[in-house]
Amino acid sequence: MGVVRQRRTYERLTILCVSKLTDVPKRILIGRALRSDRLGETLLPKRIALPVFASDPLSSVAYAPGEVLLVLSIAGVSAYHFSPWIAAAVVVLMFTVVASYRQNVHAYPSGGGDYEVANTNLGPKAGLTVASALLVDYVLTVAVSISSGVENLGSAIPFVVEHKVMCAIGIIVLLTLMNLRGVKESGKLFAIPTYVFVAGVFIMIAWGAYKGIVLDETMRAPTADFEIKPEHEGLAGFALLFLLLRAFSSGCAALTGVEAISNGVPAFRKPKSRNAATTLLLMGALAVTMFCGIIGLAMATDVKMAERPAQDLFVNGVPVGGDYVQHPVISQVAAAVFGDGTFFFVVLAAATALVLFLAANTAYNGFPLLGSILAQDRYLPRQLHTRGDRLAFSNGIVLLAGAAILLVWLYGADSTKLIQLYIVGVFVSFTLSQTGMVRHWNRHLKTESDPARRRHMIRSRAINTFGAFFTGLVLVVVLVTKFTHGAWVALLGMVIFYVTMSAIRRHYDRVAGEIAAPDEPTDDSVRPSRVHSIVLVSKVHRPTLRAVAYAKLMRSDKLEALSVNVDPAETKALKAEWERRGINVPLKILDSPYREITRPIIDYVKNLRRESPRDAVSVIIPEYVVGHWYEHLLHNQSALRLKGRLLFTPGVMVTSVPYQLQSSELAKKRAKKRQEWNAPGSVRRGPVNERSKEPTGKS
Amino acid sequence: MGVVRQRRTYERLTILCVSKLTDVPKRILIGRALRSDRLGETLLPKRIALPVFASDPLSSVAYAPGEVLLVLSIAGVSAYHFSPWIAAAVVVLMFTVVASYRQNVHAYPSGGGDYEVANTNLGPKAGLTVASALLVDYVLTVAVSISSGVENLGSAIPFVVEHKVMCAIGIIVLLTLMNLRGVKESGKLFAIPTYVFVAGVFIMIAWGAYKGIVLDETMRAPTADFEIKPEHEGLAGFALLFLLLRAFSSGCAALTGVEAISNGVPAFRKPKSRNAATTLLLMGALAVTMFCGIIGLAMATDVKMAERPAQDLFVNGVPVGGDYVQHPVISQVAAAVFGDGTFFFVVLAAATALVLFLAANTAYNGFPLLGSILAQDRYLPRQLHTRGDRLAFSNGIVLLAGAAILLVWLYGADSTKLIQLYIVGVFVSFTLSQTGMVRHWNRHLKTESDPARRRHMIRSRAINTFGAFFTGLVLVVVLVTKFTHGAWVALLGMVIFYVTMSAIRRHYDRVAGEIAAPDEPTDDSVRPSRVHSIVLVSKVHRPTLRAVAYAKLMRSDKLEALSVNVDPAETKALKAEWERRGINVPLKILDSPYREITRPIIDYVKNLRRESPRDAVSVIIPEYVVGHWYEHLLHNQSALRLKGRLLFTPGVMVTSVPYQLQSSELAKKRAKKRQEWNAPGSVRRGPVNERSKEPTGKS
Repeated sequence: MGVVRQRRTYERLTILCVSKLTDVPKRILIGRALRSDRLGETLLPKRIALPVFASDPLSSVAYAPGEVLLVLSIAGVSAYHFSPWIAAAVVVLMFTVVASYRQNVHAYPSGGGDYEVANTNLGPKAGLTVASALLVDYVLTVAVSISSGVENLGSAIPFVVEHKVMCAIGIIVLLTLMNLRGVKESGKLFAIPTYVFVAGVFIMIAWGAYKGIVLDETMRAPTADFEIKPEHEGLAGFALLFLLLRAFSSGCAALTGVEAISNGVPAFRKPKSRNAATTLLLMGALAVTMFCGIIGLAMATDVKMAERPAQDLFVNGVPVGGDYVQHPVISQVAAAVFGDGTFFFVVLAAATALVLFLAANTAYNGFPLLGSILAQDRYLPRQLHTRGDRLAFSNGIVLLAGAAILLVWLYGADSTKLIQLYIVGVFVSFTLSQTGMVRHWNRHLKTESDPARRRHMIRSRAINTFGAFFTGLVLVVVLVTKFTHGAWVALLGMVIFYVTMSAIRRHYDRVAGEIAAPDEPTDDSVRPSRVHSIVLVSKVHRPTLRAVAYAKLMRSDKLEALSVNVDPAETKALKAEWERRGINVPLKILDSPYREITRPIIDYVKNLRRESPRDAVSVIIPEYVVGHWYEHLLHNQSALRLKGRLLFTPGVMVTSVPYQLQSSELAKKRAKKRQEWNAPGSVRRGPVNERSKEPTGKS
Repeated sequence: MGVVRQRRTYERLTILCVSKLTDVPKRILIGRALRSDRLGETLLPKRIALPVFASDPLSSVAYAPGEVLLVLSIAGVSAYHFSPWIAAAVVVLMFTVVASYRQNVHAYPSGGGDYEVANTNLGPKAGLTVASALLVDYVLTVAVSISSGVENLGSAIPFVVEHKVMCAIGIIVLLTLMNLRGVKESGKLFAIPTYVFVAGVFIMIAWGAYKGIVLDETMRAPTADFEIKPEHEGLAGFALLFLLLRAFSSGCAALTGVEAISNGVPAFRKPKSRNAATTLLLMGALAVTMFCGIIGLAMATDVKMAERPAQDLFVNGVPVGGDYVQHPVISQVAAAVFGDGTFFFVVLAAATALVLFLAANTAYNGFPLLGSILAQDRYLPRQLHTRGDRLAFSNGIVLLAGAAILLVWLYGADSTKLIQLYIVGVFVSFTLSQTGMVRHWNRHLKTESDPARRRHMIRSRAINTFGAFFTGLVLVVVLVTKFTHGAWVALLGMVIFYVTMSAIRRHYDRVAGEIAAPDEPTDDSVRPSRVHSIVLVSKVHRPTLRAVAYAKLMRSDKLEALSVNVDPAETKALKAEWERRGINVPLKILDSPYREITRPIIDYVKNLRRESPRDAVSVIIPEYVVGHWYEHLLHNQSALRLKGRLLFTPGVMVTSVPYQLQSSELAKKRAKKRQEWNAPGSVRRGPVNERSKEPTGKS
C-alpha cells in the first residue's frame, strides 16, 4: 500500500505560481516584504490624507474636460461655447455630491462606505446593487486611469502612444505584481506626485491667465488651426439638448472617486469625521477649480478635439488622417501655455500620468477590501473576510487585473471609449447611498427629541435629498445618453456580480439551515459510544512507528493496524518485520486482487460499522509532509483519495499523523514568509484597532 | 472563525473535467459503463488472440511498402527494381524477430515484456532505456497509425485528406474520450475489421495475380503513367548503398508491434506460451506475405511514389503540382486490381483505416499499463501502480494523446515524416530485449545440467544472439540513415522520459532512506506520553456537536474547545449558546485583531508544546463534506490552510470529523460510479488472477 500523506496541491500551486512570479520584481522593486505590525498603525493628518484619497478624483480632471469638448464637437466647433455652461453644471453637481458625502462621513464614521449605507437603510438588495456597481467601478477605474495615463505620457514620449495597448497592459501587470507582493505604502508616496500635479495645473492656469489677460499674448494650442467637420450640422431643439446632456454626462467623469473618503474615515486623525469632511470639501474645491481652469484655457487656446479625429479634423481642408494622435486637452493646453516639449510641459505630463497610475492603484486596494466586507456578509467565500488574507487578496487582485486587461484590450486602451462605461456604476452608488441617507435621517428623526439636533438632522436630510435627486437625475441622463455607447457593458458586469453574489449567499443560508443544531438533544443518528481505531500501515518505517505510537496514546476501545496486500512479497516482509519488532498492536491484512487500496479499506470500514453501529471508526493515517509541489505528485495521491472517500462514510473520523520530511523545512519557511505578508491599502484603511470597532453581525 | 472542512479541489477538478467531458460521448458511444467483475476474466483462443494482438503489426503493411518505394524514388524509377531485395531483407528480419520473441514468450510467460527482460538481465539502466523507448513508441504508434489511417480513408473520401490534420486530431480526441470513459472491449471488436482487412489484402493479391498471370491483363495504377524526376540521378557505390539501407529502414516499419504479444501471454488460453508462440509465428507469416504481395502488385501495376510528389512527379513532362494528393500504395494497388471507387476498393480502404485506428488504440492500452509497471519499480508516482486506477490511467491517456496531437500537428499528419521518428524506439527495445535474452540463457546454462534442456537452451541462445545482432545492426542503420530526418526527435523524447523517471526513482530512494526505521528503539524525539485534545469550534451547529461528541469518545488526557474571536458579536453568541446547552467541555477563546484564524491557533498549539513537550496535541476539526466543486471554494479554504500549517508543527495530529451535507450524496454517487470504472485494455492483459502471479519485489 502506498503510504498515505498530506496534500494541498491546488492551494500550493496557486500560491507558488504567484510567489514565483512576484519574487523577481519584488527584489527589484521593493527590497524586502514588511511585517504587519510595522504597517498602517499611523493616523493620517489632513495634508497627507488629501493626496492619499484625492489621487483618484483629482486625476479625473486629466480626461473629463477633454471628454466634454469631444462630445460637443459632434455639433461642430460652434457648440464649444456651451462648454462653460456644462462646466458650471459639473461644478454644481460636484458641490452637491461633496455636501452629501459630508453627511455620510459624519453619520457613518466606521468606513463602511456606500455599501454599508445602502445595506443598512435600504436593505440587502440595494446593498448588493451598490456592491456590484462598486466592483464594476474598480475595474473601470483601472482601465480608464491607465489608458488615460498612457495617453498623457504619450504626449511627451511618442513611443508610448504608438504602442498604447501594450504599454497599458504592461503597466497593469506591473501594478498587479507590486500589489500581489504587498508593497509598503506611505502617505508620502501619494503626496509627492499628487501635489506636483495639483501645483502644476494651478501654475498652468495662473500663468495662462497672466499671459492672456495681463500680457494680452495669444496662446495657441497645437490644434488651434484645425477645423472640425461636424458629424451633425446645425443641431437644435431636442437633438441639441440630448447632445448637451451627453457632454454633461462625460464631464461627470470628474466626480469619480469622490466617495472614496467615506470608506477611509478610520484612517484620519481625530476628530475623524470632521477632518474627513474638511478634506472632502478641499478636494471638491480643488477638483472643480482645476476642471474649470482647464476648460477655460482650452477655450482660450482654441483646442480642437473630435470624437473621430481621423475623419472629422481638417488642416487646410485636408483630413488629418489615421496617423494623427489626438493628445489630451491638459497636454494641449500645457503646450500652449508652457510651450511644447519644455521642462514644465514634460514635468506636468509625467505628474499627470503618475497621478493616474496612483488612481488605478487605489482600485487595487479597494477591490479586495470591499470583497472582505462582502465576505463578512457571506456574499463571497467566507475565508475572504480575514483582513489581508493573502490568497483571497491575490485572487481579488488577479480578477481585477484580468478584467481590466480584457477591457483595455477590447477597447484598444482608448480612454474615451472606456469612459462611456465608467460613470454608470459611480452614479448607481451615489444615488442609492444618498437615498439611504435620507432614510437614515428619517429613522433618526423619529426618535430624536433634542431640537438643535433635530434641526441639524433636517438640514442634513435636505442636503441628502437634493443629492439623491440630483445624482438620480444624472444617472438617468447617463443611462439614456450612454446606454448604446457602452454603458450596457457596465450594467451587464453589475448583473453578473449581483447574480453570483446572491447565489453564494443563498448557498450559505441553505447550509446554515441544514446544519442548525436542534434545540432538544434528539440526535438524528445513533450517538456512538465506543471507538474502534485503525492505523493504516504499508511498511515499518518512522512515519508508521510514529502513527502507531500516537494511536496508542488515544486509548480507543479497540486498536488494530491495517495493511492492504497489493504485493505478496512486500506484505510478507511487513508481517515479518512487525513480529520481529514485537509491535503490540494486531496487524490485519486485506486482500486486493486489483492492487487497489481505497476500495478494500472502505469496504472493511463499512463492514465494521454494519457489525457494530454504535462504534465510531477512527482511521489514523501516517502522512508525509513535503516541501516541493512536485513531491505532492509523488507522495499524496492514494492518501488523498482514501481520505476523501472515508469522509463520505458516516461514523468515521480521519486522523493525520504527520511525518515531516527534511524538505518540509523549506515549505515551513515559505509558509512563515507568506504569513508575514501584508495586503496593500493599509494607509487608507486606518489601523486595525480603529477598524475592528466597526459594527458587524449583519449576517 | 470559518468552520473547517475537507477539500480535494485539485483532484476533484481533474476528475470532474474528465467525467463531464466524457459523459456525453459515452452515452452516445457505449451506453453504460461496466462493472469490473464482468470484464477481462475470459481467456483468448488463438483465433481471437491473433486479431487482438496483430492489428498493430499487420496494419503497418498499409504504409511500410509505400515508404520503401518512396525512398527508392530518390534515385529514380530505375531504383524500384531493388524493391524485391529490400522486401526479402525485411522478410528475413521479420522471421528473425519472430523467432527471437518466441523464445521470450517461453522464458517470460508473465507478460512483463521487453522492459522486464532488459531490467532482469541487463540491469535497471537498460530496463529504463527500454521503458523510455517504448513510451516514445506508443506516442508514435498513435501519431503514425492515425495519420496513415486518415490517408487511407482519404483515398475513398477526398474530404478527409483535404482536412488531414483536423481529421487526424479529431480521431485522436475521439479515441481519447472513449478510452477515458473505459470502453468495454471484446475480442470480436478487434477480430472483424482485422480479418476483413487480412482477407481483403489476400483477395487483392490473389485476384491481381490471377488477372496478371492467368488472364494476362495489364493492370495500371492511377500513377502508372507518371514519371519521376530523380532527386539524385545515377547514384552508385556508397551513395546507392546508403539509399538502399534507408529504404530498408523504412521497410522495417512493418515490424512495429511484433513485441506486443510478449506483453500479452497471460491473456492466452493454456498452454499459454505455446499458443502465444504459435500466434506470433502466424502473425509474422501473414505480415510478410501481405508486405511482399503489396510490393509485388505495386511493381506489376507501375505505382509511382515520390518523397516530394509536388515537384518530382510529372505527367507528360508537367509537374503534378502542390494540389496533387499521393495516395498510399495499398489504395493505388486496390484501384488497379479492383478499379477505383468500386465496392471492393471502398471496403478495403475502410477496413485498412479501421485496422490502423485499432492499432492506435493498442497504444492507449499499452501506455498506462507500462506506466503501472514502472510505478511498481518507483520510476513513476507510486499510486499509478494500482491496476486500472482511473486517475492514473486518465493522466496517462491525456499525456499520450497530447504528445500524439502535438506530433500530428507539427508534422501535418504526414505519415511519411512521422515514420522517420518511429522505428528508433522499436529497435532499441528489440536489441536490448534480445541481448537480455542471451544473458538469460547464459545464466540458466550455468545451473542447468539436463542435456536435453541444455540443448534447447543453447538453441534458444543462438536464436536470440542472432536476433540481438541483426536488430542491433538495423538499429545502427536506422540511426545513421534517419538521424537527421527526424530520429533525433525520438531520441530526445527518450532522453526526457529517462531523465524524469531516474529523478523520480532517486527521490523515492532518498525518502526511503530518510524514513527507514532505526533498528534500536532510540527515538529521535521525546516520545509523547499524554494527549491534549482541542476541538475547533466556530458556532454551535450539528458539525460542531458531532465533533465534540467524537472528541469525548477518544478519552484524551485533556480536552478543550477552542474558538478564534474574529467578530465579537459572534463570539459572544457562541459563549452564550455553549453555556445554555451545558456542553461539559471548557471553551477557550483566542483573540485575533487581524481577523486571522490560522496564526492564533498555530501560536496556541506551539505554546502548548513548549509548556509540556511530552504532550502530543490532537486538533479535531469539524469538516463539511460537500458535493459540488464550487462548494469547495465556499467551504474549505480556512480549514485547508490551517491543516497544512498544523502538519508542519511537530507533535501534532489532525483529526477530521466529517459532517455530510445533503449535497455530498451526489459526490458519493459520483465516487462510486468512478470506482466501477474499468481501464480499457483488459482483453490483451488477461485476467487478474493470472497476472497477479507475476514476479514482483524488484524494487
